[in-house]
Amino acid sequence: MGAVVQLPGPVGGQFTGPVDVLLDIDLTGGRRQGIERALRAAIRDGRLVAGTPLPSTRALAADLGVARGTVVDAYDQLVAEGFLSARAGGRTVVAAAARRPAAPPSAPVSAAPQVDLTAGAPDLSSFPAHEWVSALRSVLRDGPADALDYVGPRGRPELHAALVDYLARARGVMAEPEQVVVFGGVDHAFAVVTRALAVTGRRTVAMEDPGLPFHRRIVADAGGEVVAVPVDEGGIDAAAVAVSDADAVIVTPARQAVLGATLAPGRRGDLVAWALASGAVVVEDDYDGELRYDRQPIGALQALDPERVLYVGTASKSLAPGLRLAWAVVPPALVGAVESVLPPHSPVSSLDQLVLADLIRGHVFDRHLRRARSAYRRRRDRFAAVLRDRAPAVQVEGVAAGLHALVRWPAGTAGEDEVLAEATARGIAVTAVGPMWHGPHHGADGLLVGYGRPPAHDVRRCFDAFADLMADMTPPRRP
Amino acid sequence: MGAVVQLPGPVGGQFTGPVDVLLDIDLTGGRRQGIERALRAAIRDGRLVAGTPLPSTRALAADLGVARGTVVDAYDQLVAEGFLSARAGGRTVVAAAARRPAAPPSAPVSAAPQVDLTAGAPDLSSFPAHEWVSALRSVLRDGPADALDYVGPRGRPELHAALVDYLARARGVMAEPEQVVVFGGVDHAFAVVTRALAVTGRRTVAMEDPGLPFHRRIVADAGGEVVAVPVDEGGIDAAAVAVSDADAVIVTPARQAVLGATLAPGRRGDLVAWALASGAVVVEDDYDGELRYDRQPIGALQALDPERVLYVGTASKSLAPGLRLAWAVVPPALVGAVESVLPPHSPVSSLDQLVLADLIRGHVFDRHLRRARSAYRRRRDRFAAVLRDRAPAVQVEGVAAGLHALVRWPAGTAGEDEVLAEATARGIAVTAVGPMWHGPHHGADGLLVGYGRPPAHDVRRCFDAFADLMADMTPPRRP
Repeated sequence: MGAVVQLPGPVGGQFTGPVDVLLDIDLTGGRRQGIERALRAAIRDGRLVAGTPLPSTRALAADLGVARGTVVDAYDQLVAEGFLSARAGGRTVVAAAARRPAAPPSAPVSAAPQVDLTAGAPDLSSFPAHEWVSALRSVLRDGPADALDYVGPRGRPELHAALVDYLARARGVMAEPEQVVVFGGVDHAFAVVTRALAVTGRRTVAMEDPGLPFHRRIVADAGGEVVAVPVDEGGIDAAAVAVSDADAVIVTPARQAVLGATLAPGRRGDLVAWALASGAVVVEDDYDGELRYDRQPIGALQALDPERVLYVGTASKSLAPGLRLAWAVVPPALVGAVESVLPPHSPVSSLDQLVLADLIRGHVFDRHLRRARSAYRRRRDRFAAVLRDRAPAVQVEGVAAGLHALVRWPAGTAGEDEVLAEATARGIAVTAVGPMWHGPHHGADGLLVGYGRPPAHDVRRCFDAFADLMADMTPPRRP
Repeated sequence: MGAVVQLPGPVGGQFTGPVDVLLDIDLTGGRRQGIERALRAAIRDGRLVAGTPLPSTRALAADLGVARGTVVDAYDQLVAEGFLSARAGGRTVVAAAARRPAAPPSAPVSAAPQVDLTAGAPDLSSFPAHEWVSALRSVLRDGPADALDYVGPRGRPELHAALVDYLARARGVMAEPEQVVVFGGVDHAFAVVTRALAVTGRRTVAMEDPGLPFHRRIVADAGGEVVAVPVDEGGIDAAAVAVSDADAVIVTPARQAVLGATLAPGRRGDLVAWALASGAVVVEDDYDGELRYDRQPIGALQALDPERVLYVGTASKSLAPGLRLAWAVVPPALVGAVESVLPPHSPVSSLDQLVLADLIRGHVFDRHLRRARSAYRRRRDRFAAVLRDRAPAVQVEGVAAGLHALVRWPAGTAGEDEVLAEATARGIAVTAVGPMWHGPHHGADGLLVGYGRPPAHDVRRCFDAFADLMADMTPPRRP
């Protein structure tokens, strides 16, 4: 139903004398609500501008054929909401103009690739969904009384305790529960740690070159100045760190994020010696330290000097990135600085924290890791074998641990961009190495291939597709 | 088993000539692991300091009665971890000193009160646990393929869409999905919004006085300068905001967080007019806008001017604070600034976001809110009645909406601190009003009482205990 209401006021922005404004009033769902909706819409659209006097409640009620009280209630509601205001003499006018917001440009939507081998995630289909759900049910049924209440800045004590035990057992990390902080992923951890270091006057952060570009962005956004330090087959160049003006360094000792190297023993000692001598802090990103295949995992660097090394771990590789669960073990001297930049309440779900604590305590987490380790080892071997067979010129590096490989091929053949373009054309998604370098690309061509990512049932197809790509882009045999 | 190993080096920090160091070696769980553990411990404790030469593998193997290969493997592992280093000539020495960190002072543990009436949380026992768990199960079974993958900076699109519909329906909020950002609670939202406003040059944030102190702390920690603006029975003094040098204001229009007032219609218009004229931003904290008892909910201030009002909502009152789920609808012109301070990945669990979207789409959330609204209305009436009966001099204010009341009593009787001390002595936890004031307390004595918090079965006992307290602290009748 629509009602033509004569409005004697400025309409549509400028004064035009008395005009008719069509209020399209839909009375389904209540007459009064219908009147309110119609007036709100007219005011937002600018059909009724500020100052426009409304018809008297009697007149509008008559026009609409509704009880006058209904119109009075509608006007009152809109007055309470600030759309209308009641003038002395009982006249009701439009109180403020409301405009519909223009939608911001939406991000371009890209179609999902048929073969997703991007680095950074495990096989999501291997997530222990049943165990997670039943742990959640038991937390909600038998968990602490405050399981659903606010969480303190550092997170749930149950998870602190479980992590202290687990990290000591699995990674050699030495921690007291008071040193543990729970984060919503490593992004969140790096941002908070960077701010905390700034609080202590440490603003220059050395980072691995090549390294993950979004780590650099997070540190820079949080106010840190990033210094690039070269990485080779022994990991980060500790001597270069020592002579830089950095007062902190973020390293990936268990498996360098891009080249896959393990930080060399001597350099481990050199880093903590530098930290001890200069008062700097070493931030250890142990993102996939649990997933080592060919030998016993190397213990965390943190164990060498818990006073100087801030340890960061995550469930993104061991369980799933979508959980957004990470943790840090903060040197005692820095706990205060970290707490000073944490909000009063942890942003991480109390339930999720209790579920993870439950899975760790019940050794479900360890069992899952053992299964994952052998599954990914088999995958990695198959991946290397398929490439050896079909694209013998290709080298597969950095596969002693983790979920992705650095794939390289002889110089003088196809370039990195060429291979990436062809991959995209074939619906194969891999991770470019170019952006991993600080500044311009200054290393051999390569790709990061997340062999860990495809669901188990689809591994063969994905590996074959990638091997065919590389076979077509590289010489038939190693030069 | 223990083995006394003669070590010819500096031990315990200073050179003392050859001494015996007891390596307490526990071989359960593997001989090699036992040797590694014992050496790590000795190095960490400082019993073995840097440079200390270790016995030859042959000698230690003989001392321990194990195969020499076992000792060789143990030394190799500790060299790889950086605890030992292999010198030319085959001598192995302690490579770096590791010290056990001193535990930082742990927070004092306070016993839970027998009667918890603190403000800020709903009845946690009313959480729809069954619905939440089954929604999670269906998300894991039938949800999007990337349900467990990384989440973009603003959160899951499914939740953006669900919130746009819900907020338009329930709160009159006008939004496009591109304007919605998911946060890990309101703390997180305020911190990000403050940083985003700073990016746009807006650093001075007006806040309600009285208001929640931790909101002020979050804004200040995020780099905002806080300006106190008085609040009265009409909500924040919009005229005072307009004459301040603030370029943003955080308000609680639906129900002022402390006094419980609804922002007066005229002041709503004045705030958006000020924002329009001065380029300032109004941040609307709609923390419990859904829980209104005596009349139809007042629509969100955001609807008055979606270009100038940044809307913040939360699941902390409608579901539970422990979920750490909040959301913002950002004016189109500010979306870029907000995105510029967000990390690459949302810190909020992808699963939790999908579950909430599912509950909203399936109207489970609305049903829960309807049940909650009538339950809390009954509670509120009982709370007021119990106090009327037993402590007639007490006024119960700000109960038209929300989960807590402002309880006041005649001046000249017991002071706020006195009542709080007696409450604590009786094991009754309530929320002090004193800290809500910017600077020194400059209002009438009062307490915030979270009548919504006790579990349903315990409401009577909790209300009686509080009424008895107030009866003992106030005159038998209103003066």
